[in-house]
Amino acid sequence: MRDLAAHPELLSLNTATVRERWGLEAIIEGCARHGIRAISPWRDQVAKAGLANVAKSIRAHGIGLSGYCRGGMFPAADDAGRQRARDDNLRALEEAVTLAAPCLILVVGGLPPGSKDIAGARRQVEEGIAWLLEAARPAGMKLAIEPLHPMYAADRACVNTLAQANDMCDRLGAGVGVAVDVYHVWWDPALEREIARAGRAGRLHAFHVCDWLVPTADLLLDRGMMGDGVIDIPRIRGWVEAGGFAGHVEVEIFSAANWWKREPDEVLRVCRERYDTVC
Amino acid sequence: MRDLAAHPELLSLNTATVRERWGLEAIIEGCARHGIRAISPWRDQVAKAGLANVAKSIRAHGIGLSGYCRGGMFPAADDAGRQRARDDNLRALEEAVTLAAPCLILVVGGLPPGSKDIAGARRQVEEGIAWLLEAARPAGMKLAIEPLHPMYAADRACVNTLAQANDMCDRLGAGVGVAVDVYHVWWDPALEREIARAGRAGRLHAFHVCDWLVPTADLLLDRGMMGDGVIDIPRIRGWVEAGGFAGHVEVEIFSAANWWKREPDEVLRVCRERYDTVC
Repeated sequence: MRDLAAHPELLSLNTATVRERWGLEAIIEGCARHGIRAISPWRDQVAKAGLANVAKSIRAHGIGLSGYCRGGMFPAADDAGRQRARDDNLRALEEAVTLAAPCLILVVGGLPPGSKDIAGARRQVEEGIAWLLEAARPAGMKLAIEPLHPMYAADRACVNTLAQANDMCDRLGAGVGVAVDVYHVWWDPALEREIARAGRAGRLHAFHVCDWLVPTADLLLDRGMMGDGVIDIPRIRGWVEAGGFAGHVEVEIFSAANWWKREPDEVLRVCRERYDTVC
Repeated sequence: MRDLAAHPELLSLNTATVRERWGLEAIIEGCARHGIRAISPWRDQVAKAGLANVAKSIRAHGIGLSGYCRGGMFPAADDAGRQRARDDNLRALEEAVTLAAPCLILVVGGLPPGSKDIAGARRQVEEGIAWLLEAARPAGMKLAIEPLHPMYAADRACVNTLAQANDMCDRLGAGVGVAVDVYHVWWDPALEREIARAGRAGRLHAFHVCDWLVPTADLLLDRGMMGDGVIDIPRIRGWVEAGGFAGHVEVEIFSAANWWKREPDEVLRVCRERYDTVC
């Protein structure tokens, strides 16, 4: 296993972690100041700051990307909706290429409004990714399906286990892999096996960390700082690295009541500290 | 598939659904009044009403049980804690026998305080059930492992998929099966396959229904009335019945902000109506 404390350059910040109080330019400058060498920015922040400006700024600060957030949200109630989703994914792909991201993260989407057909939603996801791959492959941009915790199956992502993502990748072929976020998968009894399977297929494209708090007060916005919850992060990182993953450890914390309220400089300081000692 | 509207006797009420406003005696009388022929009571309610009184009352009203809630909570920080949990399960087992329940539902428990070792907690669960089976088999009382939604993995149950419960049952042998609650398993891509597997092994012991609301406001206490959410209940019931399940459809709704606040007579009326039309 890699010694993270000896490799600060492997830490990446998902910009959602401090976006409530800083714009993207401030985040890039803050990361540079705190010695954080990579980020994973969100599309709306990039749009606000201007794609060309962001590309220039990260180059100027020597900041790399660990991923680009995000494509996905494929299922829709009708063909027009599905095409809008696909067109939007194509734009996300182009932005990821412009920013030289190593992969485009896919949060695949849940049930279309009014639908109870989760199997159908999953088929729509697979068809959407197959369509996007036709553009992603020639562009050399990897797609990374992020299985989301089953509590998001209805409204955010109907890909909910790594086994399911692996099955989908097997069918879709080259160019698509997975993002492993400990928050979403830590509970999975098949996790070790499925990480190894993804590793053998060379499809471990991203690794995200935060923590599961007990109790968890909110389904979406109560994620914990690494070390404050029950996830055995080093164990999962060990499996991911044994599977050949050599990329960044990306910190992504949605925490409306705690970390989003704090001074971002403090948040970055704690992220670095916990990266050294807990991850 | 069974025609539920033609078989009102297959409806059962998990007493948690109306327990905020009614004691167990009032629930039994209410069910009799509404033509609900079965219940699944909770241990603390039974203790409060008196075990002998409850046994007498359900007989007097012609009310059967669809299960008894609940044993489990096996993992603990030390041997003494584990033994206390086992002793408590033995008492639950005896109560289930006294009440002639068809099975004792097991909510297996999560991580011991301070632990991040979910694999270890799972081993403790399996050891605890193996111990309890030594008493359950001669008593003729079936145990039913209820896989809980992964969002409860840390604090309520570290058995989180039907595949995992099936694997555990395979190792434990005769006398233990599963309870399928649509709320906990509806998202599972392997659900149909694992229900069929449980059916082949003759271990489908209970079937619980409610609904998954979008959005869900609380991890524990925001379950929906059947029909108000996104779960395709008839599809899952079809799989369970194809697997040989011939027992009750048990309604279990934890809903602090909505159904628990309503007049229980109204809740029972809606349960019956949705049982006929939605389940």
